[in-house]
Amino acid sequence: MQLGMIGLGRMGAGMVRRLLRGGHQCVVFDLSPDPVRQLTGEGATGTASLEEFVSTLRTPRAAWVMLPAGPPTEQTVMALAGQMGSGDIIIDGGNSYYKDDVRRATAMQGRGIHYVDVGTSGGIWGVERGYCLMIGGERGAVSHLEPIFKTLAPGHGNIPRMPGREQRISTAEEGYLHCGPPGAGHFVKMIHNGIEYGLMQAYAEGFDILRNADSTALHEGHRYDLNVADIAEVWRRGSVIGSWLLDLTAMALAEDPTLSNYTGFVHDSGEGRWTIMAAIEEAVPAEVLSASLYARFRSRQGHTFAEKLLSAMRQRFGGHLEHPS
Amino acid sequence: MQLGMIGLGRMGAGMVRRLLRGGHQCVVFDLSPDPVRQLTGEGATGTASLEEFVSTLRTPRAAWVMLPAGPPTEQTVMALAGQMGSGDIIIDGGNSYYKDDVRRATAMQGRGIHYVDVGTSGGIWGVERGYCLMIGGERGAVSHLEPIFKTLAPGHGNIPRMPGREQRISTAEEGYLHCGPPGAGHFVKMIHNGIEYGLMQAYAEGFDILRNADSTALHEGHRYDLNVADIAEVWRRGSVIGSWLLDLTAMALAEDPTLSNYTGFVHDSGEGRWTIMAAIEEAVPAEVLSASLYARFRSRQGHTFAEKLLSAMRQRFGGHLEHPS
Amino acid sequence: MQLGMIGLGRMGAGMVRRLLRGGHQCVVFDLSPDPVRQLTGEGATGTASLEEFVSTLRTPRAAWVMLPAGPPTEQTVMALAGQMGSGDIIIDGGNSYYKDDVRRATAMQGRGIHYVDVGTSGGIWGVERGYCLMIGGERGAVSHLEPIFKTLAPGHGNIPRMPGREQRISTAEEGYLHCGPPGAGHFVKMIHNGIEYGLMQAYAEGFDILRNADSTALHEGHRYDLNVADIAEVWRRGSVIGSWLLDLTAMALAEDPTLSNYTGFVHDSGEGRWTIMAAIEEAVPAEVLSASLYARFRSRQGHTFAEKLLSAMRQRFGGHLEHPS
Amino acid sequence: MQLGMIGLGRMGAGMVRRLLRGGHQCVVFDLSPDPVRQLTGEGATGTASLEEFVSTLRTPRAAWVMLPAGPPTEQTVMALAGQMGSGDIIIDGGNSYYKDDVRRATAMQGRGIHYVDVGTSGGIWGVERGYCLMIGGERGAVSHLEPIFKTLAPGHGNIPRMPGREQRISTAEEGYLHCGPPGAGHFVKMIHNGIEYGLMQAYAEGFDILRNADSTALHEGHRYDLNVADIAEVWRRGSVIGSWLLDLTAMALAEDPTLSNYTGFVHDSGEGRWTIMAAIEEAVPAEVLSASLYARFRSRQGHTFAEKLLSAMRQRFGGHLEHPS
Repeated sequence: MQLGMIGLGRMGAGMVRRLLRGGHQCVVFDLSPDPVRQLTGEGATGTASLEEFVSTLRTPRAAWVMLPAGPPTEQTVMALAGQMGSGDIIIDGGNSYYKDDVRRATAMQGRGIHYVDVGTSGGIWGVERGYCLMIGGERGAVSHLEPIFKTLAPGHGNIPRMPGREQRISTAEEGYLHCGPPGAGHFVKMIHNGIEYGLMQAYAEGFDILRNADSTALHEGHRYDLNVADIAEVWRRGSVIGSWLLDLTAMALAEDPTLSNYTGFVHDSGEGRWTIMAAIEEAVPAEVLSASLYARFRSRQGHTFAEKLLSAMRQRFGGHLEHPS
Repeated sequence: MQLGMIGLGRMGAGMVRRLLRGGHQCVVFDLSPDPVRQLTGEGATGTASLEEFVSTLRTPRAAWVMLPAGPPTEQTVMALAGQMGSGDIIIDGGNSYYKDDVRRATAMQGRGIHYVDVGTSGGIWGVERGYCLMIGGERGAVSHLEPIFKTLAPGHGNIPRMPGREQRISTAEEGYLHCGPPGAGHFVKMIHNGIEYGLMQAYAEGFDILRNADSTALHEGHRYDLNVADIAEVWRRGSVIGSWLLDLTAMALAEDPTLSNYTGFVHDSGEGRWTIMAAIEEAVPAEVLSASLYARFRSRQGHTFAEKLLSAMRQRFGGHLEHPS
Repeated sequence: MQLGMIGLGRMGAGMVRRLLRGGHQCVVFDLSPDPVRQLTGEGATGTASLEEFVSTLRTPRAAWVMLPAGPPTEQTVMALAGQMGSGDIIIDGGNSYYKDDVRRATAMQGRGIHYVDVGTSGGIWGVERGYCLMIGGERGAVSHLEPIFKTLAPGHGNIPRMPGREQRISTAEEGYLHCGPPGAGHFVKMIHNGIEYGLMQAYAEGFDILRNADSTALHEGHRYDLNVADIAEVWRRGSVIGSWLLDLTAMALAEDPTLSNYTGFVHDSGEGRWTIMAAIEEAVPAEVLSASLYARFRSRQGHTFAEKLLSAMRQRFGGHLEHPS
Repeated sequence: MQLGMIGLGRMGAGMVRRLLRGGHQCVVFDLSPDPVRQLTGEGATGTASLEEFVSTLRTPRAAWVMLPAGPPTEQTVMALAGQMGSGDIIIDGGNSYYKDDVRRATAMQGRGIHYVDVGTSGGIWGVERGYCLMIGGERGAVSHLEPIFKTLAPGHGNIPRMPGREQRISTAEEGYLHCGPPGAGHFVKMIHNGIEYGLMQAYAEGFDILRNADSTALHEGHRYDLNVADIAEVWRRGSVIGSWLLDLTAMALAEDPTLSNYTGFVHDSGEGRWTIMAAIEEAVPAEVLSASLYARFRSRQGHTFAEKLLSAMRQRFGGHLEHPS
């Protein structure tokens, strides 16, 4: 079927390529002409403006927005909505906050435009591996887009059917899932990323302890000089903690077990933060997910004001001086 | 080659079966005669006492102890050592504390007995899937046992070689690894389990937030009734958080998305605790791994004394009364 | 001076009493006639409706709302605003979310009504001890109310001036502080309560470890049967951790060291949650404050879904069964 | 009475001064001759060697060791024990691990020497304010030393008796407490310091959020430029979170609200670590106390290996680059 794609960065371009290979037609647009030209060369229909993009799409139009969350997505979705009409579908495939989805979907409902939110996981590997899709929106619009979802998702692949699922037929086994009404897709994706932070931090702490097992702070007989690259590799083979993130860890450590090319300044995207806010709204304890987020906050500072205050208190009551060495 | 196995529980018996299938000879012993009889029927050589077990083994003897950590392992290893001689090898395949390994290895060194510690992951699936083996001990003894390790481990299987490992030939790719001197195997296994706790808790918190997304505490438009079984399934397909633990989660939720058969009383084994102690000795922050451990401690109590004290303080300063409803 | 007070619960009534004793005139109103009658008997001017309340106040009117945060405060403040005029002052002395203050202050600005937010600490002790007041609003309105703040606050009392403050004259030393524009008072009070949660949890965990020092899980020679009431008391005398919360702890433990009258079901008010949200917006790590909040969430559940999922995973990979005993 | 003091650093010298003022006789020794000379000038009896120290003490001797925990204390206590005899008392007033106390007390028991462990809080303020003393040891030896404890402790002072304590006469009200058998004093002091870490971290996080309330990351209308010095001061007056640590905080912030003289490199002593180990041995959740310790670990590193691994994983799955600005 035909799909319009706005935003041809790593993710958007990868999805267009996967769709073209899957036999779909793609109308594409980006503020930068380069990726438009590039994808046109690969079989997509390039357009030079939002107006041209909209008018090139056949009705009912389906336009997928793949832009950074926040103002870029908000402005583009709203501009699109202004040019589209009843029966058309706008898909937000970025990392939007689910409450923004709810607001936008409600705003468009009156004009008959369908709003579908799709949380997408898979990163730069998705073009080959397929994208895991978490979808929110009205059933009709979601059904209409099913051929697109089926192509983008990984499909069954060689992952065996889970025992107990025989009676539970669901597209989940093909890698895409209609999770619920508007916002549900991004809600599930938000939690996905919250979990991702927690998993990453668990591995990170574990490898940090392994790495420091040669510390002279330890009793000599209990000190080990461990090969973290080989340990990551062996854990991929039959251990309980095997995962795709461990695969990537093993890959990075195989290249350089000291990770000396990284400073350790770690960004966070909105989803980790929103996950904690959701936990708090629901009164669900989320100790590990919060700690993972805070570790990233802390990684981006030289020293916190909190730490300075600890030093100041220690000096006041104990006369303790800092001596950072 | 020939291997003696003491302790024929789920793990020990599974390992014997995998070794027999791999063409090895197994001499087996257990305090309970049933599993001895059972495995004898499957091709192992059963013995009825520790003495018979030792005398049945050919020198240099290799005896694998697969018992609960603590007194059972300690007593058996020591009893074995008393009956073995120079050149013999005792393997502790359980979940011992690595400092106990160091002590035992040192104690046996004077008598020429080799002590090898093997951390084993894979659980009840290992007999088919292979066991991930983390090994500590002297190089000579570990090399001698290599045929055993090769059979127990999963081997390359269909997991593709990691880019960047071409020049880094290691048995890690076959699922077993000599990590270092005595204790190093169990040290690495300890951290493995520490990470396991963290991963499990990250998934658990995430699914808890999903599950409670229908809470009436939430604004109606932001409330979702999510299918956690399908969400676990879809995440197995192309998402960043795919893992073996997620596979097991999906399996459990497919069977019963409410998990109503579980109370949520969660045990912890020693490794999670020892991991935190190692982190503290090394001065490595291990927020997520600690929080995971504490969540288990908390799960086993009705209410903590800490919580009662919070209630008491609240009442004293604010006149707040508890009303648990 | 004259002040109107709406909301005559524990806090509101206590404040009226302290103001009356300080020579101020109080016009009072509450939905329930009992406290109105009671305070009228103590010298206040009782009123029977919001209309009467407003018309009894002399212009420029000053009306203090002391109601639960959320709908009760919102509705009352808005109803008051509808009946007041340019130059009048509405004070929200409850525990409102500071973003609500900003919104309300902006809404009233056009009509010339001043909005002042006052975070109040001191609990049921404040009537004798004085209330610590954190104030937000325009300078003019705040200055106008200064006689009221001075009476409600504890004053210098016998707390000696802090060395270094000689040149830093501030009403902070008298127990009230104009913190900034609208919302600033409740912002500071919010953080105050966030810290309060953290302090309480620190004591609670420490006493829990003391209480369990007699656990049979410990080696016999390292087991202690400690008198937690006496320990709380001795810590009040010259130790680094002396505090008012410790005083209350000592009081509670002196009465019953087992705290058997409390179940340990611990509520949380909004401020603890909002503190975490502010930390996240600012990207400030707030590990301890979050953990304190989560401990309260956890205290209100039998078992979490998270814990059930941990049990389920453990059973799947290790065949581990729960046995809660 | 007469007391010997070994170790004349800030704490030891302060205690000698307080004892001299209280009319006691002090025999003093230190490896450095300066403080010995100094205190001799103030009325103490100086000695030039451990031998002279011991022989100057009248039997039954009472020798207080006030040295850093670990080797300095261990060696001195053991050397002392070698020169002392039945009925003599050795007091360890430092910050020893309670398990070391148990070991030493047991070792000396056979020779009739009494071992008393005293956890001491109060820091550099103790000489004026009095020291809070937590005492472990046999009842007889502890009773013998009571005149010393009474002088060192703050006494009742102007702190009113706690309601409910009328029937519960205890020296706790005077600031010293016999907590239990050997090790109990240092056990209680250990938890005291664990709590101290938690309290400090709670204030530190709260002030960090206040300090960053002017962050441009916030919506303009929700941004505040707060005076943290005045806020600390106002909280000392009638608020729920008043404490001695808050007094010190207010003092430090009054001097310099930016704390620019501190880097924020925060040390930790053993007690914080041992507290966590005790919590783990008892299976008590200690989330806040652990987080406080980890914040200190983290403060002493540029970047952790954990953070580098997070960066590496992010790059592998998302192509995300670090850009620390």
